[in-house]
Amino acid sequence: MNTEERKAIYNQAKEWVLEAGKNIRAKIDDPLIIDTKSNPNDLVTTMDKETEAYFVGKINQIFPEHHIIGEEGYGDKLTSLDGTVWIIDPIDGTMNFVHQKRNFAISVGIYHDGIGEIGLIYDVMEDNLYHAKRTEGAYKNENKLAPLAQNVRFDEAIIGLNHYWLCENRLVDELVMQQFVRKIRGSRTYGSAALEFAYVAEGIINGYLTMSLAPWDIAAGIVIVNEVGGVTTDIDGATLDMLEKNSVLTCNQGLQQEIIQFIEKGRK
Amino acid sequence: MNTEERKAIYNQAKEWVLEAGKNIRAKIDDPLIIDTKSNPNDLVTTMDKETEAYFVGKINQIFPEHHIIGEEGYGDKLTSLDGTVWIIDPIDGTMNFVHQKRNFAISVGIYHDGIGEIGLIYDVMEDNLYHAKRTEGAYKNENKLAPLAQNVRFDEAIIGLNHYWLCENRLVDELVMQQFVRKIRGSRTYGSAALEFAYVAEGIINGYLTMSLAPWDIAAGIVIVNEVGGVTTDIDGATLDMLEKNSVLTCNQGLQQEIIQFIEKGRK
Repeated sequence: MNTEERKAIYNQAKEWVLEAGKNIRAKIDDPLIIDTKSNPNDLVTTMDKETEAYFVGKINQIFPEHHIIGEEGYGDKLTSLDGTVWIIDPIDGTMNFVHQKRNFAISVGIYHDGIGEIGLIYDVMEDNLYHAKRTEGAYKNENKLAPLAQNVRFDEAIIGLNHYWLCENRLVDELVMQQFVRKIRGSRTYGSAALEFAYVAEGIINGYLTMSLAPWDIAAGIVIVNEVGGVTTDIDGATLDMLEKNSVLTCNQGLQQEIIQFIEKGRK
Repeated sequence: MNTEERKAIYNQAKEWVLEAGKNIRAKIDDPLIIDTKSNPNDLVTTMDKETEAYFVGKINQIFPEHHIIGEEGYGDKLTSLDGTVWIIDPIDGTMNFVHQKRNFAISVGIYHDGIGEIGLIYDVMEDNLYHAKRTEGAYKNENKLAPLAQNVRFDEAIIGLNHYWLCENRLVDELVMQQFVRKIRGSRTYGSAALEFAYVAEGIINGYLTMSLAPWDIAAGIVIVNEVGGVTTDIDGATLDMLEKNSVLTCNQGLQQEIIQFIEKGRK
């Protein structure tokens, strides 16, 4: 994808993201119809569905040759990332959306032949747009984000991770993860993967670690973190498969090896 | 303390809190001198100290008969809560202040003969003031906070707690706490006790659970949570000692018994 194409698609995507966010803000106090998906805590609302349908309608109209992967299933069933693919989470952090009416985001990643070209994460209630185009840097609204500090020590790092890492789990011995949270400076849990990626890019946290995320949770975040010199892999350091669920570690490059080596001690 | 006295002290305290916050915002990008206290992750900066000294100077000048308990030691060494006592944390969430330059608060609780009369929690960077006077309701800026929903089920609750609860600890069997986070709907960690109290009052989280907090971390929060019908005790349901450190549970009354009973199963 060349610079001109990227710019044109980015401008269109940005317009739609801001418009979708405006619509969510206008309806934030309306009664919600809430459903559950894979488990009782995996919430979905009519707003998630409406917002995804809005994007799908727009993309099909303006870019009929593009493909779409969306959390709520209005997109395509893809078996490859060939061509241009929009990877969309209409509301990332639905539990926060339902319970807090803030701390959730619209996440739109646009990939071309598997390469992340554009990332947009919109903190709807704060009206903060984190955005990046490949090779052109990352921004929070109008402000260019600084490159991540590469000299953060492990024991000075603040890492985002949820509490389940410290319970018995299929990936890592929980005793190792308990040592992990004792060794780092601080741990935080915000409840939105997209925002935690944005916070890594912004330097609010130094890394974010999660057991199983779908492509729509991470597609935008990966592009944005890349542009500030961060790196995103699975918890073993392997490249992510953007058609499947993955464990995820996103952080600055200086921390990555130390975190992976620490986790390896308890890896199942 | 009668209504008129309470109002006069509240107005004065509010003016100082906003002024102190303005000063912190003005200096937020200045280089910090950071020190550590009880452990390497217990940070203190010159800004914590300056801010506390500011309050102590003002209080001594205008209310010379009042007493002061402050985190940084500029206050008095009190052995009783007789009279009017200001309980101050100049920067609650110092790690967030240092690493994030946001998500920290000024916390000022004012007690009279041991009874919480006034609470002010100022989210400095968001410019959000949570405040309450006893019997007069709680507010976020100009907006009165609604009474807490009392019908939140345990398995629908979002609880603030840090990750150390799930590691071996002196208070509760960590396996019970691991069941706890699996049973509730969600867990969050924000890194500022004062803000987590404010979030409970606002309904952003339904409870907040912490192992050991000093009076200055909680004094303002208790007053604010009280005014929306919430309740604050230690993790066994006992009244807090405002001259000592305590374990703390603050939440809506409907959840309190369930949470205490759950924890009791693993209580050491």
